[in-house]
Amino acid sequence: MSKFKIAICQMKVIDDKEKNLKTAERLIVEAACNGSDLVVLPEMFNCPYNNSFFPKYAEEYPGITTRLLSQLSEKYRIYIVGGSIPEKQKEKIYNTSYIFDRNGKLIDKHRKMHLFDIDVKDGIRFKESDALGYGNSVTVFQTEFCKIGVAICYDMRFPELMRLMALKGAKVLIVPAAFNMITGPAHWHSLARVRALDNQVYFIAASPSRKLDSPYVAYGHSLIVDPWGDIISQADEKEAIIYGKINLEKIEKIRNELPLLKHRRVDLYDIKETSID
Amino acid sequence: MSKFKIAICQMKVIDDKEKNLKTAERLIVEAACNGSDLVVLPEMFNCPYNNSFFPKYAEEYPGITTRLLSQLSEKYRIYIVGGSIPEKQKEKIYNTSYIFDRNGKLIDKHRKMHLFDIDVKDGIRFKESDALGYGNSVTVFQTEFCKIGVAICYDMRFPELMRLMALKGAKVLIVPAAFNMITGPAHWHSLARVRALDNQVYFIAASPSRKLDSPYVAYGHSLIVDPWGDIISQADEKEAIIYGKINLEKIEKIRNELPLLKHRRVDLYDIKETSID
Repeated sequence: MSKFKIAICQMKVIDDKEKNLKTAERLIVEAACNGSDLVVLPEMFNCPYNNSFFPKYAEEYPGITTRLLSQLSEKYRIYIVGGSIPEKQKEKIYNTSYIFDRNGKLIDKHRKMHLFDIDVKDGIRFKESDALGYGNSVTVFQTEFCKIGVAICYDMRFPELMRLMALKGAKVLIVPAAFNMITGPAHWHSLARVRALDNQVYFIAASPSRKLDSPYVAYGHSLIVDPWGDIISQADEKEAIIYGKINLEKIEKIRNELPLLKHRRVDLYDIKETSID
Repeated sequence: MSKFKIAICQMKVIDDKEKNLKTAERLIVEAACNGSDLVVLPEMFNCPYNNSFFPKYAEEYPGITTRLLSQLSEKYRIYIVGGSIPEKQKEKIYNTSYIFDRNGKLIDKHRKMHLFDIDVKDGIRFKESDALGYGNSVTVFQTEFCKIGVAICYDMRFPELMRLMALKGAKVLIVPAAFNMITGPAHWHSLARVRALDNQVYFIAASPSRKLDSPYVAYGHSLIVDPWGDIISQADEKEAIIYGKINLEKIEKIRNELPLLKHRRVDLYDIKETSID
């Protein structure tokens, strides 16, 4: 039980929810048939990543997307971290990841906690908080292998949240994300590697494939990084499934050799949760 | 006053304190004559980096090393972040960085807060805490340009400390360090880049040059990283001075475009100082 296999489905997302779900299903089935224990989809995998699409694509739970993920996880006996979709709850929309166990049961969900409001001169402008509500909870769930943390895209910019998940016992951090053609080349690989090595965890960063005629062009390059900060699996920009073996003994070995978590000066500082609803 | 020039003296450190001080002086003078406002030396620049040397090389303040740094900073009207040296205080030895202003006045000092106790299988073993005492303070000092934070080597492994310095207002983080031939190639560049971009500061990482017949072989590759995470200046493994222009307007621009520090969810988490002596 100290080893298991994770797959990232770096899928192409288009302006057609039904076709997106067909793509997700095809890739999840292939990943399951290749022996994956846990399959990860990218951020906003059923919907183009743009504020104007979120209301039209948003679903209450349970909906067509979450029902499909539940069925697939039960049928193939796999965990699914369902990237994210626009979640409708009353008048609000959230950027939400639904997480299913091997029995098709929803065991946790994560609502994106940090919304992507960015305005890079001559680069890219995006104001997610115009369309979406804020999540207010750190998400760590239990499996038979280990605890696993989930955050979404811009959440990974915040070392405090990454550390909190590790301190809650997560040995794997999964981040469905959609970095763009400015922030991707500049920051994607370095961030993923340093989050892994700072927290001595596996870091799973799942992007959609690149589609140049989208309103928001994703960088691709989904990554699986080991707890030493080495990239063990990487996609290019095209649609693909990548696989990585999680070896919990490797985490223990590295944490013994270079005991970063133990060497934190908690007598002098610590990260405190102020309030979680 | 929104721009100033920093130099890193990536000097060779040998088992001869007097010669090390001569080397430091030669490089500091050259950096000063090239218009540097602030000059940085590497970790343990007057002493080979090994527990067995620390007692012999250790100095009380003021001592021969700190007097020299004070004189040079006054003579050349520059700030000096004096890498680090073994500091003797009563029965204890610390790994300490002394910081002088343009008038030769000691304005702050940093004692390494996280001691390097590492045991990588088939790699490297080092137990700094056998020989050294722990520093217990976060170090941020004021200049006419901006606030600047100082930490030492293994301290930079801890995102909490880096964040605390940024939250105290540091726009530049200076880290005299001596990564080795295992951790250097694996982590040095990524860590420096991500500390800069997470905190939207300039990150100055100063290593000794590589000396293959040392008991502890430093990686070299001193770096100056801008607040977007781009490396703007880098040494190779040999003795050298590298220079970087700090542009405070660039920090403001990036913090406006991608307001990471503002987007922290301090309603949900924050880094607290527990006690500082």
